Amino acid sequence: MQIVGELINASRKNIRNEIREKNREKIVEVAKAQYDAGADFIDVNAGIFVGKETDYVKWLVQTVQENLDVPCCIDSPDPKVIEESVKVHKGTPMINSISLESERFDRILPVIRGTGIKIIALCMSDEGMPHTRDDRMRIADKLVNSLISNNIPVENIYVDPLVQPIGSGDNFGIEFLNTIESINKEFKGIHTICGLSNISYGIPKRQFANQTFMIMAITKGLDSAIVNPLDKKMMANIITAEMLAGQDQFCEKYMTAYREGLLDF
Amino acid sequence: MQIVGELINASRKNIRNEIREKNREKIVEVAKAQYDAGADFIDVNAGIFVGKETDYVKWLVQTVQENLDVPCCIDSPDPKVIEESVKVHKGTPMINSISLESERFDRILPVIRGTGIKIIALCMSDEGMPHTRDDRMRIADKLVNSLISNNIPVENIYVDPLVQPIGSGDNFGIEFLNTIESINKEFKGIHTICGLSNISYGIPKRQFANQTFMIMAITKGLDSAIVNPLDKKMMANIITAEMLAGQDQFCEKYMTAYREGLLDF
Repeated sequence: MQIVGELINASRKNIRNEIREKNREKIVEVAKAQYDAGADFIDVNAGIFVGKETDYVKWLVQTVQENLDVPCCIDSPDPKVIEESVKVHKGTPMINSISLESERFDRILPVIRGTGIKIIALCMSDEGMPHTRDDRMRIADKLVNSLISNNIPVENIYVDPLVQPIGSGDNFGIEFLNTIESINKEFKGIHTICGLSNISYGIPKRQFANQTFMIMAITKGLDSAIVNPLDKKMMANIITAEMLAGQDQFCEKYMTAYREGLLDF
Repeated sequence: MQIVGELINASRKNIRNEIREKNREKIVEVAKAQYDAGADFIDVNAGIFVGKETDYVKWLVQTVQENLDVPCCIDSPDPKVIEESVKVHKGTPMINSISLESERFDRILPVIRGTGIKIIALCMSDEGMPHTRDDRMRIADKLVNSLISNNIPVENIYVDPLVQPIGSGDNFGIEFLNTIESINKEFKGIHTICGLSNISYGIPKRQFANQTFMIMAITKGLDSAIVNPLDKKMMANIITAEMLAGQDQFCEKYMTAYREGLLDF
């Protein structure tokens, strides 16, 4: 599984202050902890700083990459922020995100075309947020095919079907899971990704519910996720579910995790 | 999910002695603990007592049912034991098991025909144990269709695809999971069941692997299981996975479990 470490996000109170003060040491510490715990990408998000977002995201990318040999996931709803931040990124970043919303699509596409950039494609359109598998697949079909027809390689596309809270609809979990399955069936070689903590919004024992949902999503074929890599239980669930899903030859990763104490909590 | 409580099994050392000594109090205690923890059936197995198995299983059924209003799952490879034990069972038992092995099939069929008894149907034939989904489906097709053509209602059939250790084959987990999915797709109204602890045979952290595998099996449609209902984590996983799979209206069971402290461990 490809792990995007989610912790450097200005919506988190502690991180917000560190970003505002450009506390290099702290940002590097959080990036390194995630990298050491298995993050393949370090998400950087400064979305709450209106007017200063570009400056902060660029600073975050540079701060992370001056200290670690790891790509970032540039995370902003604002195409302008993405466009500017990509320029200071070394190697191939991931971008979070493009969608079928026309304004976002039209402005992000030129940034990624011909670059090899990995792109998170949200199942969202100008008509808003879909609820069912069928609604999501209608958007995914258009979105993915538009990207492919613009020469974005399918293996650089990470579809995020968008998790919605189970507390708002009994079927919101299963419709999401079934979308993962359908996307993998329809587009060979594509990736699926999500930040799944939204599933437990409004119910108790959120972390436990999230950890459980991760195992279910892997069972349906999820191969990338935006998570907290320092959540030891979550990471153990991922390693174990992947082994049980036939993705760990001779249980090697599982056995290594066991020996390193990663299955103890 | 229908839970078959697995603890009253003579292969477990402590229980073996209690059965040998016909310790009524202890057997009732273990049955009641499982019932209180959510068991829908109490498995009774005295398979290691050669020559005395019938006597012990009958005694177990009677002992459990004199004290609790719960059906048993009569668990024996020996059709004779099953035939005799069914006679002393009040209400409708579950039987573990029938298979496509001709001797077992031919002798169990008359015991269940026309009775309403619930039957666990193992994906096993005279050719032995299957490994892949396709091999299992070939057996399941014959077995289930034979049962149906003998007027066993599909909703009384619980197919057990037979879990095999992930340590013996990287794909043994996913082939099992895919079989669950295929059986549910092919036979509307049927049940699937398993005792899943075999998956972790030979690897460390067995309980954790089993608990993870349960969530994966539920994701693929497993609706019954032979488990230890006193494994609090396992039961919490079941409740949570079922909620996330859209089987818990308004998250009611999840919320109740939370209030009762069943999600704390």
